[in-house]
Order: sequence, then structure tokens, then C-alpha cells
Amino acid sequence: MKAWVVDEYSEQARFRKAEVDKPEIRPGHVLIEVRATSLNPIDHKILTGAVPVGPSLPAILHMDVSGVIAAVGHGVGNFKPGDEVYGCAGGLKGSAGQLDGALADFMLADAALIAQKPKSLDFGEAAALPLVAITAWEALIDQAAITADDLVLVHGGTGGVGHLGIQLAASRGCKVATTVSSKEKGEIARRLGAHEIIDYTLEQVEDYVQRLTGGRGFPVIFDTIGGDNLDRSFEAAAIKGRVASTIGRNTHDLSPMHSKALSLHLVFMALPLLTGEGRAHHGDILRELATLVDAGKVKPLLHNKRFSFDQANEAHALFAKDDYVGKIVLEHR
Amino acid sequence: MKAWVVDEYSEQARFRKAEVDKPEIRPGHVLIEVRATSLNPIDHKILTGAVPVGPSLPAILHMDVSGVIAAVGHGVGNFKPGDEVYGCAGGLKGSAGQLDGALADFMLADAALIAQKPKSLDFGEAAALPLVAITAWEALIDQAAITADDLVLVHGGTGGVGHLGIQLAASRGCKVATTVSSKEKGEIARRLGAHEIIDYTLEQVEDYVQRLTGGRGFPVIFDTIGGDNLDRSFEAAAIKGRVASTIGRNTHDLSPMHSKALSLHLVFMALPLLTGEGRAHHGDILRELATLVDAGKVKPLLHNKRFSFDQANEAHALFAKDDYVGKIVLEHR
Repeated sequence: MKAWVVDEYSEQARFRKAEVDKPEIRPGHVLIEVRATSLNPIDHKILTGAVPVGPSLPAILHMDVSGVIAAVGHGVGNFKPGDEVYGCAGGLKGSAGQLDGALADFMLADAALIAQKPKSLDFGEAAALPLVAITAWEALIDQAAITADDLVLVHGGTGGVGHLGIQLAASRGCKVATTVSSKEKGEIARRLGAHEIIDYTLEQVEDYVQRLTGGRGFPVIFDTIGGDNLDRSFEAAAIKGRVASTIGRNTHDLSPMHSKALSLHLVFMALPLLTGEGRAHHGDILRELATLVDAGKVKPLLHNKRFSFDQANEAHALFAKDDYVGKIVLEHR
Repeated sequence: MKAWVVDEYSEQARFRKAEVDKPEIRPGHVLIEVRATSLNPIDHKILTGAVPVGPSLPAILHMDVSGVIAAVGHGVGNFKPGDEVYGCAGGLKGSAGQLDGALADFMLADAALIAQKPKSLDFGEAAALPLVAITAWEALIDQAAITADDLVLVHGGTGGVGHLGIQLAASRGCKVATTVSSKEKGEIARRLGAHEIIDYTLEQVEDYVQRLTGGRGFPVIFDTIGGDNLDRSFEAAAIKGRVASTIGRNTHDLSPMHSKALSLHLVFMALPLLTGEGRAHHGDILRELATLVDAGKVKPLLHNKRFSFDQANEAHALFAKDDYVGKIVLEHR
């Protein structure tokens, strides 16, 4: 089969089309004829060597996948050939071994990580969702345990994880505020369901805490930015607030957390892929997510240009420029 | 009435007996004829000026109290004169105003913060419990949400908060491991209900994680030490583990938290006293605690010498030496 592989992990690493062995079906697994993938920050960090969890070289990358089931392994009861599925299922190597990624004709995937794709989405749209939706789900629903009427602040509302955070919180009946960096992004965030828009280039934490919470702070904050922004999240939190973060920088002053008795939940959705444990929960999330999508409550935000697999280098160059809105999707054409 | 007041907040500050006005009863409050108090680290930090939340000078300090209700304010339905009560109710000044402490003949207390004392304890024993028990309760039951069969690591098992942590976790059916600094303290911790003893002067984190969890780590850790120990708590935690801490140092590297998707809960039990919000929960905890105490499931660990209020300076000197076991109790004789 064809695959788009990389031969090194570095800033200079480039994808090249290659002929590789088609994966053989295994018990508990499905073989997916790949239709699309999306680009997540971790894929780019693996490519450039910033995080050391890439598959052995030459490597097939990209975690998110959508496609059609081509074969079903022993013991898999909930899929059959022809099913249209989506998931976040490869492009990594951890203690559980190597999982090849989606930039290929076929991808072998643990059936626990996969679900029927939302019927209302095409393959490109479906491939934009798994990693960011599972991350937002684990942060807001599993860890911060949002309930209806919670006031939730989502940092980075038009980002990959952030735009799912807005929609999942709104779908649970929460009131959602979100930070963005421009008027245009604010309009996008409002269309996604955010009730209150904060342009963080124009308004200080103290000011929007006063404007939106009367100075009390936000009971729930989802920080999809990390770094200094995590400190701003502590500043914006209410007493006993819950902050969920995908992190960024390493070292933080926790004294603001202590003075308000905050809880901090760090989310790392790739753990089940790396360790092999807790994978069934990802499949469960994707099944519930598909229901929300088909009910019109969640939709992915896509960059206006979709790439082919042959354009993987171009897609990563766009990502590296960091000047775009919407998930970057690559379709197998 | 008599009170034991301080005239400054500094390392040189000393208690002196003084004649002060007896507090007047207020709506929602009770007037307690004080029988005992205990010494918590925060009382000493206020005395020495290390934390700026002391009452206006000259000040009556000490948060924990036990005694007999002398008068009941308007709107208080659950107490009557003669009731024997305990609570953590004063010795601080926050946004809700000043609350005088327990080192006096009488103490005015918000009735929401008070409960009937355990019948099986004398006043000195009862005064040892409120602050440390509420802290451990908020950490383990409210925040880490322990359930039966959770494996809980309590750092500092013979400390004030730690010895309550062991007993509350054990009373919920958890298996409890605890760190201590000597064989003698290990025996005390075992009598308190700890199932596994770790002498941290002899065993490294990696080794006891291997010995007690097969290398998987602890799902729940209660760090009553803080500082570097919080880093050791992150090291000892299992994937998706919950760490609760009363903290100490300010700055921490959160990358170990991220790689294991940990949750961190910082506990600051004094918040309802400082802010006026959430006080009723403290009374609720103390009522449940009294039931556990009278059922023989929780008991305070007291230092073998009990002090009089006239010996308040001696009691604080013992605390400052940091070479004792058991809570330091002061009785009004």
C-alpha cells in the first residue's frame, strides 16, 4: 500500500510517499481504509522531534482517522466491513508498543478506540474531531464534571480543542465565556455557542472577571493554551474553582491556587494509546459525540482549505505558521 | 473577661493575660464558654507574622475551640445553653471581618461553624479535631472523592492533618499507606489504622511505589507536608491519580502531572472563616465527624503534655521546636 512516511524527527523532517506493507488484521482490531486525517499539534511536535513518542523510523504519522472498515479482527463484534468510522488511534509509540498513523491507504486500529462516524459529517469533517473532542470531553465532563448552569470559561475558543470545549459545555447547558484574539474569531466563537466573548488583546483578566462574574471568578475554566495562560486561569478562577488544562509550560506558582483552594486537572488524551489502558472509554466518548453531532449540537470547525495526503508537507507548513483558523484536514484522494 | 492576647505579630510576639470586654451575643451566633483550644500551624504563623490574616492588635488568637454554650443568638435553632460543642471558628481576619479566637474565657462563634462535640471525648480531645479534621475531610472526601478500596497514600501520617487523613480514609474502607520518619511513628500510624508504613528516611519513592503498588503508583495521595514533598507526590501517583495537598512551597514543575494526567486539589480550610461563604459545610462535617468519633472510628492523637492558657507561650515554643508527636492542646483551667 501507499503511505506518507517520514525518515527523521527534526525541524527539517518531510513526508514522502512510499510503498509499505499493508498491515495484517489482528484480534481486537479493525483495518480501516483511510479517507481522511487531521493535523493536531502533537502530530507536528512528533514530526519535529519536540516530543519523543513517535513510531520507529521510517514512520507513518497522524493520530486522527476516518474511513471505511476493510476487515475486522477476531473478537470484534461491533463493526463490520463497510462501516464508516472515526477515531484517534495511531501515530505514536508508547509502553503498549507502536501504533502506525493515518497517513496511509490503510490503518490498523484497536477497535476500542473507534466508533461509527457521525452520519451528518463527511469523512474530512469526521477526521477533525476525535483528538480534540476526546480532550475536551475528558477535561470538562470527566474531570471538571461540569453541570448545567455552570459558568465555564474556555480559553482559545476557536482553537482545535477550544471550539469543542465551547460546544460540549453549551450542550450540557452551561453558560460559556471564551477568550479570542480578534473580532472575527469572536464571531466564530459566538456561532459555536459561546454566550460571552472576551478579546484578550483588549481586556485584562481582572476586568473580564468583574464584567462577567461580578468579581467572583469562574467556577470552571478550560485552559487550552497553557504556559502563562495557566497563571491567568488561576487568576480568573472563583474560590474552589476547577481548572482543566492541556498545559504548555512546566513551572508554575501554585500559591494563587492555594489561596482559592482550586483544583487543577491536567488532561493528556494520548495516555490510553501509549499505555494500552483505558481505551474503551475513548470509543464510548466518540459514540456519545456522534449522537451530539447528528443532533446538531456539535460541529467541527475546519480550515477553508482541505489538503491531500500528497500535500502533507504543505499542511504542516501552514500549521507551523500558526496563522489560520479551523482544524487542518487532509483527505485521501 | 480574661483573654490571652498578643500585641504584635513577630517572632518575638508573646501572649499576655489581659482583661477585655466579654463579647456580646449576635444573631446567628453562639457564645461559647471556652474549655480548650489546640495549636495549629496557622495559629503560629499568624503569631509570628508569617501569614497576614491575624485579627487587629491586641489580638485573641487560636482557631479551634471546645466549650459550653453560654448564650444563643437570634435565629439559632440547633443549640441551647449548656450544650457541649466544638468547632474551628475564630482567630482570623478576612474579607468577612474579624473573628476573635479561643484563648479567652468566652468566644463568639458563627453557629454554622459549630457542632455538638463527640460525647466520648473530653474538651481537650475535642479541641484537637476541628481544623485538622475539616482539612482532611475536604481533601479526601470532598475533593479526592475517595471510595472504598481506593489505595490512599497519606504523607505525614502522625501529623495533625495526617493522622486524621489515615483515619478518615480507613473509615471509608480505603487501604491506607502512610509515610513517617521513624519506627515509633510507624507504630503510632499503624494503631491509627494505616495498613502500610513507609519510613521515608529509609525508602525512596520509586521503591515504595514498586513494593506497594507493583510500580503502578497510588490512585489517591494526600500530601500534608508540601514543598518538595508535593513533587514526590506527583512521582508516586498513578496515571489519572488525584493528589490533594495543603501545600507549602509555591513553585512546582507540573510536567510530571501532565505526563500522568493527574488532578491536584489544593485545600485551604480557613476560606469560609475568611470570606463568610460555605460555613455551613464545616458544621456539617463536624456533625458527621462526631458520629465517627463516637463509633470509635476516629480519635485525636494528643501530645502527652496538655498546657493551660497561661502556658500559651510554652505551647508555641514546643510547636516551634518541631520535635513532638500529637496535637498540642491548651485547656482553660
